Amino acid sequence: MAKTLNVGLIGYGFMGRTHSNAHRKVTHFFDVPYQPVLKTICGLVEAEAKAFADKWGYESHTTDWRKVVEDPAIDLVEICVPNNVHATIAIAAAKAGKAVICEKPLALNGPQGEEMVAAVEKAGVPNLVSFNYRRVPAVTLIKRLVDEGRLGRIFHYRADFLQDWTISKEVPQGGMGTWRLDVKAAGSGVTGDLLAHCIDTAMWHNGPITSVTAMTETFVKERKHAETGKMEPVGIDDACTFICRFGNGSMGNFESTRYARGHKAKYTLEINGEKASLSWDLHDLHRIQYFDHKDEGIVRGWRNVHVTDGDQPYMKNWWVPGLQIGFAESFVHQLADFLEGMAKGKPVGPTFKDALATQYVCDAVLASGKSGIWENVKQIR
Amino acid sequence: MAKTLNVGLIGYGFMGRTHSNAHRKVTHFFDVPYQPVLKTICGLVEAEAKAFADKWGYESHTTDWRKVVEDPAIDLVEICVPNNVHATIAIAAAKAGKAVICEKPLALNGPQGEEMVAAVEKAGVPNLVSFNYRRVPAVTLIKRLVDEGRLGRIFHYRADFLQDWTISKEVPQGGMGTWRLDVKAAGSGVTGDLLAHCIDTAMWHNGPITSVTAMTETFVKERKHAETGKMEPVGIDDACTFICRFGNGSMGNFESTRYARGHKAKYTLEINGEKASLSWDLHDLHRIQYFDHKDEGIVRGWRNVHVTDGDQPYMKNWWVPGLQIGFAESFVHQLADFLEGMAKGKPVGPTFKDALATQYVCDAVLASGKSGIWENVKQIR
Amino acid sequence: MAKTLNVGLIGYGFMGRTHSNAHRKVTHFFDVPYQPVLKTICGLVEAEAKAFADKWGYESHTTDWRKVVEDPAIDLVEICVPNNVHATIAIAAAKAGKAVICEKPLALNGPQGEEMVAAVEKAGVPNLVSFNYRRVPAVTLIKRLVDEGRLGRIFHYRADFLQDWTISKEVPQGGMGTWRLDVKAAGSGVTGDLLAHCIDTAMWHNGPITSVTAMTETFVKERKHAETGKMEPVGIDDACTFICRFGNGSMGNFESTRYARGHKAKYTLEINGEKASLSWDLHDLHRIQYFDHKDEGIVRGWRNVHVTDGDQPYMKNWWVPGLQIGFAESFVHQLADFLEGMAKGKPVGPTFKDALATQYVCDAVLASGKSGIWENVKQIR
Amino acid sequence: MAKTLNVGLIGYGFMGRTHSNAHRKVTHFFDVPYQPVLKTICGLVEAEAKAFADKWGYESHTTDWRKVVEDPAIDLVEICVPNNVHATIAIAAAKAGKAVICEKPLALNGPQGEEMVAAVEKAGVPNLVSFNYRRVPAVTLIKRLVDEGRLGRIFHYRADFLQDWTISKEVPQGGMGTWRLDVKAAGSGVTGDLLAHCIDTAMWHNGPITSVTAMTETFVKERKHAETGKMEPVGIDDACTFICRFGNGSMGNFESTRYARGHKAKYTLEINGEKASLSWDLHDLHRIQYFDHKDEGIVRGWRNVHVTDGDQPYMKNWWVPGLQIGFAESFVHQLADFLEGMAKGKPVGPTFKDALATQYVCDAVLASGKSGIWENVKQIR
Repeated sequence: MAKTLNVGLIGYGFMGRTHSNAHRKVTHFFDVPYQPVLKTICGLVEAEAKAFADKWGYESHTTDWRKVVEDPAIDLVEICVPNNVHATIAIAAAKAGKAVICEKPLALNGPQGEEMVAAVEKAGVPNLVSFNYRRVPAVTLIKRLVDEGRLGRIFHYRADFLQDWTISKEVPQGGMGTWRLDVKAAGSGVTGDLLAHCIDTAMWHNGPITSVTAMTETFVKERKHAETGKMEPVGIDDACTFICRFGNGSMGNFESTRYARGHKAKYTLEINGEKASLSWDLHDLHRIQYFDHKDEGIVRGWRNVHVTDGDQPYMKNWWVPGLQIGFAESFVHQLADFLEGMAKGKPVGPTFKDALATQYVCDAVLASGKSGIWENVKQIR
Repeated sequence: MAKTLNVGLIGYGFMGRTHSNAHRKVTHFFDVPYQPVLKTICGLVEAEAKAFADKWGYESHTTDWRKVVEDPAIDLVEICVPNNVHATIAIAAAKAGKAVICEKPLALNGPQGEEMVAAVEKAGVPNLVSFNYRRVPAVTLIKRLVDEGRLGRIFHYRADFLQDWTISKEVPQGGMGTWRLDVKAAGSGVTGDLLAHCIDTAMWHNGPITSVTAMTETFVKERKHAETGKMEPVGIDDACTFICRFGNGSMGNFESTRYARGHKAKYTLEINGEKASLSWDLHDLHRIQYFDHKDEGIVRGWRNVHVTDGDQPYMKNWWVPGLQIGFAESFVHQLADFLEGMAKGKPVGPTFKDALATQYVCDAVLASGKSGIWENVKQIR
Repeated sequence: MAKTLNVGLIGYGFMGRTHSNAHRKVTHFFDVPYQPVLKTICGLVEAEAKAFADKWGYESHTTDWRKVVEDPAIDLVEICVPNNVHATIAIAAAKAGKAVICEKPLALNGPQGEEMVAAVEKAGVPNLVSFNYRRVPAVTLIKRLVDEGRLGRIFHYRADFLQDWTISKEVPQGGMGTWRLDVKAAGSGVTGDLLAHCIDTAMWHNGPITSVTAMTETFVKERKHAETGKMEPVGIDDACTFICRFGNGSMGNFESTRYARGHKAKYTLEINGEKASLSWDLHDLHRIQYFDHKDEGIVRGWRNVHVTDGDQPYMKNWWVPGLQIGFAESFVHQLADFLEGMAKGKPVGPTFKDALATQYVCDAVLASGKSGIWENVKQIR
Repeated sequence: MAKTLNVGLIGYGFMGRTHSNAHRKVTHFFDVPYQPVLKTICGLVEAEAKAFADKWGYESHTTDWRKVVEDPAIDLVEICVPNNVHATIAIAAAKAGKAVICEKPLALNGPQGEEMVAAVEKAGVPNLVSFNYRRVPAVTLIKRLVDEGRLGRIFHYRADFLQDWTISKEVPQGGMGTWRLDVKAAGSGVTGDLLAHCIDTAMWHNGPITSVTAMTETFVKERKHAETGKMEPVGIDDACTFICRFGNGSMGNFESTRYARGHKAKYTLEINGEKASLSWDLHDLHRIQYFDHKDEGIVRGWRNVHVTDGDQPYMKNWWVPGLQIGFAESFVHQLADFLEGMAKGKPVGPTFKDALATQYVCDAVLASGKSGIWENVKQIR
C-alpha cells in the first residue's frame, strides 16, 4: 500500500489547477509509491481559495503561504505563483525540510536561482521545476531517439513559441491572469515565460548552450496596470529571438513572441542530425515527425508518428492506440516520475539545478538583447 | 451543495476505466448538480475487481452484477460489458428504478433494443447510451454549425472508421480484450463497434437515414477462440461499407474496417453543404476543417480550426487556448450533461431511444450485406 | 535524329491545350523517337481555331474534322472533343490508318466503345485513351510499389473525386465549357467524367472490378441549355457513389460529385494492404503517403514522400529534388510513353481496350444507380 | 503580331534549362509583346552546347560568351553561369546595349554589384535578376495581400531555406553541379545561394532590412575539388542564421543550411501582422496559409488556400481550379512580366538595383558572421 504524501499547494490559478489535477489523477493511471493527499490550498483571496478547496477536495485553505510551509503535516510544497515570489517560498520550504515543486521559470534571474539551488541542496530535499513539456510523450520520445544516437551528429536545433494574446493594447499588465506582462511580477516577458520552456527542452535534448546573441522588442510601450489603474511603461520583452551555439557544435535558433497573429500556443521544435531529423508541434502534441535517411530512397519521407501506442513513453498507462491524451497529462507524468524519484531517493529532472542552467541562458539572452553582442552563458559547475 | 449520486459500475475493462475517470474528474471541471460517489465496481474476476476498486476508489467490489442492480443505495448503474449482456442488465436496472448509462451499441439488434427502450420508458428512469464522440468539442461544434444553418442544403455526408488491429491471423476471438471478434459476445463486427459511432453522429448532425445498401466481408475466416482454445469460424464482419440516403435527400457513404493498415482509430467525417463544408478526424480530435463559400475568393480555403478556445463547446471549463484535451474528456462532458439532465428531469441524448434508431440502421446494413439489395431502415415512430 | 510525326488535333478547348502543350514540351525533356510536328488544329469556330493555331504554332487550322482524318500527311489524330463525338472520329481515323489518342472516357457506353476497339484493332493502329493521372509521378510510383508486392494482400481500395463547380443553379448545360452537364454531349455526369479516372487508375493498381452497387443523384433537376436558351431537364448524374468488389477479393468504395463545397478537383485514392498502405491526393499531386508496417513500432507512421527525386518515376527528366512539376506534365509523360511504344510497336496503356474495361464499369455503375441492385461488370475477354 | 526578340543564353546547366523552357512556353500561355527567338546557346563544352541547342532549338551554339555579347543580332542576353562570372558578362552585355537577365545572386559582393548597376543604368538597358520565387503565384498573392494592408502593422517576418544535399563528406567542391560549394565560383555558400532568395522576397514583401546579426558555420572543413582533384579547405558557409530589423520596425529571423536532413528545398516564409498572418512553403508551392483575425471566433483558423483559381495571380493563363502548376512556371511569369516591361519601357523588378539591395544584406550578414556584432545594412540611395 502506497504511503500518503501530504501536499500544500500555493496558488490557485491556471497552474494550481494543472497541479491539482495531476494529484487527483496520478494514482488512477500510474503505480506510484505515494498516495497524494491534498492538505492545503493557499491563495490571495480567501473566498476563492475556499471555492478551490471545495472543488478539488483540499482539506483546508489559507491566504498565508507561511502557514503551508510551516505546517509539519505537509510533505510537499508546490509553488504556482508569480515568478517574483518563487525564491522566497521555495527557500523557506526547503529550510522547513519540504519537498518542493516550483513552477517555471525557476527565478527572476540567475543569482536568485543560485540561492534557491543552494537552499534545496543544503536541505537535501527533493526538488523539481515544472517544465512540463519534457513529459509530453512525443517530446519524451524525441529525447529517447536522440539518446539512442539515431540522429548522429547534430547540426541544427530550432524552436519557436508563438502566441498572439497580447496584440491588443487593451490587455492590462499586472493582476490575476495578466501578471505575466508586469515586469515586477514576471521578471521578463516571453523569455522567462515561453523561451524558458524551449531552452529547457533543447538542453535536455541537445546539451548545454554556450553563447547567444539576441534581439528583444516591446511592441506596446505602455499598458494600464490592473492594480494601480494607471498607464505604466511596459518593462517586459513582448518578443525575443536569439541564435546560439550548443556545446556540441550545433547551431540554435529560437524565437518567441506574443504577437504572432493566428498562433495560440504554437511551440514547435526541430532537430536536424546527420542521419535523421525530428520535429514536434504543441498544437498537435501527440505527434512527431521523423525523417530517417536510412529509409529506401523512393519511399523516404517524413513519418507522421501518432504517439499513442503502448510502447511509446507513458502511453501504456492510458487508453488504446489512436486515442490521444491532452496537455494536462504531462503534469501527471511529471508527478508520477517525481514520486518515483522521491521513493528511490533519486533526483528527477528538471531539478532546481537543471532549471538554473536554463535561467543562465535566459539571463544571457536578455543581456544580449540589451548589449547587442554575443554573450557567453554561465555554466553550472 | 451538490447531492451525492451513488454509482455502480459493471465492467472494469477499457470502458470501465473511461467511465470511472469521468466520475473522478467531472466535479473538478464542471459545476454539476450531483457529486458522484463510486460505490461498487463489478467484474468477472474478483481479484481484478478488487484491484480496480483500490485504484479508482470504489467503496466495494463484486462479481455479481445483480448485487449492483439490487443494491438500494445505488442511484446510477453503468454498463461497460460486452454487447450481449447489455439488455439483461439494463432491463433489470430499469426495473429496479436506477438511472442507466449503457455502453454502445445499445443491443445485439433492434428487437432487443426495443425491449430495453420499453423498460427504461416504463420505469421512467434517466438513460443514455455512451456514444461519446458526440461530445468531443470539435464534433459538438459541428452540430452547432449545422444547426445554425451555415451549410445550407446538405448534399453529402461521409464517414470512415478505420483500424488495423485484427490483420494478424493470430489475434484470437473471445475473451477479455478480444470479445469484439466473437459474434456471440459482440453481435456484429465493425458495424456495431465502429459504424454505430459514425451512424449516431451522422444522424445527430444530419437527420435520419432511410435506406441503405451494404457490402460486408470477413477477411479471416477462422480464429482461435480465447476461451475454448479451438479454431472456430469467425462470425463477425471484419469490414463493412454502405451507401445510404438520408431523409433530407442527402447522400451518405460510410466505411469501416479493422484491416486498414496504418490507421489505429481513424474516424473521420465530412459534410458538404450548399454554402459550407465541415470535416473532422479523430486522430486530431481537437481540430475541425471548415470551408465557407462566403469567404472572399482569393483567400478562400479550408480553415484549420483548433477547437481549444473558451467560446467553443465545453472548452471554457478546461485550460487556455491552444492547449488541447484528450479522448477521455468526451466521457466527462457526457457525464456532466447527463447529470445536468437528471437534475432537470430532461432526457439527454443519445437516449436508449436515440440509440435504437442507430441500431435499426445497423440492422439494415447487416441485412443488406446479406441480401445485396437496398434495405429500408425501420424508423422510430 | 528523331523522325517527325505529324499531328492533327481536334478540339481546342482545355484538353486541346494540354495535348498541344505536351507536344511542345516532350522533346525538351524526354529523348523520344519522334519529333512531333503540329500540323493542323481543328475546331468549331474558325476564328478561334486560327487564334489557337497562331498561339501554339499549328501549321494550319480547319473547322472540319474529316479533313484532319483524311489528310495523308497526318500521322496521329488526337480527339479532344465532347464524348458523343469520340466514336465517329476515332473510327474514321483508325480506318484512315492514323494513330489515335482519344480523350477520356472512351465512349458514351460499352457497345459504342466496342466498335471503337474493333476499329483500332482491325486497323492495327497505335491507340491510347488519355487517362492522364496514371502518369502523375506519384500515381505511377504507387503502381510500382503495388507491383513489387509491398502491400501484400490488398483489402481495400477507395477513391473520391470531389468538385463543387455546379452547385449554382445558374450554371447552364451544353455549350463550350459546360457540355459536361449536357447528357447528350457527355453521356453521363460525374461517372464518365470523374469516376472514369478513378476506375482506370484503380484497375491499373488493383485489377478488375467484378461487381458494383451504386447510388446516383441529380441535385439540380433543370438547367438552362446554353445552345437553346431554354430550361431543360438535367440528364446527367451530379453525384455518384458506388461500392464494389475487385477480382482479387478486395473491397472498393468510390465517390464522385460536383457538389462537395470546398473541393475544386480533389481526387484522392488509398490502398490498404496486409503489409503496407498508400494514398495520394491530386491537390498535392507531388506527394504520396506511405505506411509500412515493417517499420519499427515506436517510429512507425505515414511517410510523407515528396515525389521529386531522380529515382522516382519520370522525375530525372525534370528539375532537382524538392522542385515540383504540375498537372500538365502528366500529359507530357503520356505522350513520351506513347511515342516510345509506337517506335517499338508495343501498345501503351491505357489502350482503347483498357478504356473499354473502364467503360464497362461505368455502365454497370449507371445501371445499378437505376436498378438498385448489384450489377456484374462485363469483362474484356 | 509580336515582334521577335533574339535571345542569347549563356550557361546550359539547371538554370539554362529553366530559362530556355520559359522562352519556349511563354507565348503559349501569355499574350506577350515579343516572340522570343532562341538564337545562341553558349557553354563551356562544345558537344554539350550543341546537344543543348538541338534539344531546345537554339539556332547556334558557341563556347565563347563574348560572341553572344557582341552579336548584333542578339537583343537579350541571359546569364546562367556561376556567380563569379556574372559581373564581367553583364557589364559587357550592357555596354553592347543588350537587355540583360542575370541569375541570382547579382554579384560576389556589393562593390561588384554597384559596378553592374552602374553599367546597366548608364546603358539604359532593361535588366532583371532572376529571383524567380517572387513569381510563384502564392508568393505574388502574399505581396498583393500585404500591399492591400490586410495584415496591418507587421511584427514578424521569418524565412528558412533548408536543404540536405551536402551532408556527405564525399560531395566535392567546384565543377559542374557542385560549383556552389567552391567559394571562388560562388562567393559564398547558403547566404548567396539560398538566403538571397529569402531576402529578396522579404524586402519585396516587407521593405528594407536595416541591421543584422548573424552566425555562420562550415560543418565540413575540407572537400575534394572537382577540378584539381585535391582536398582543399571549404571557404563557403554551409549554414547561416541571422536575425534582423526591418525599416518598418518588424523583427526578422532567417535561416539557411544544406545540413537539414529531410529537407530537399524547403523554403518557407511567414509574416505576422496585427490583423492577419500569412505563410508559404516551397514544397507545396501552390498553397498559402492565411489567418484573418476578423473571422468569427468559433470558426477562425488558418485558411489553407489552394492558389489555382483564375482570380489569383497568373493562374487565369493556365488550367482550371484545383490543377496546379510547377516550379518552372515561375520563370515563365518572370519572362512574361519582363517582356511586358520592355515593351512599355518600364523597369520590372527585381532589377539589378533591387538585387543590389539584397546583395548589401548578404554582405552585412557575412560580415556579422565574422565580426559577431550587429552590422548596419548599406542602403540604396
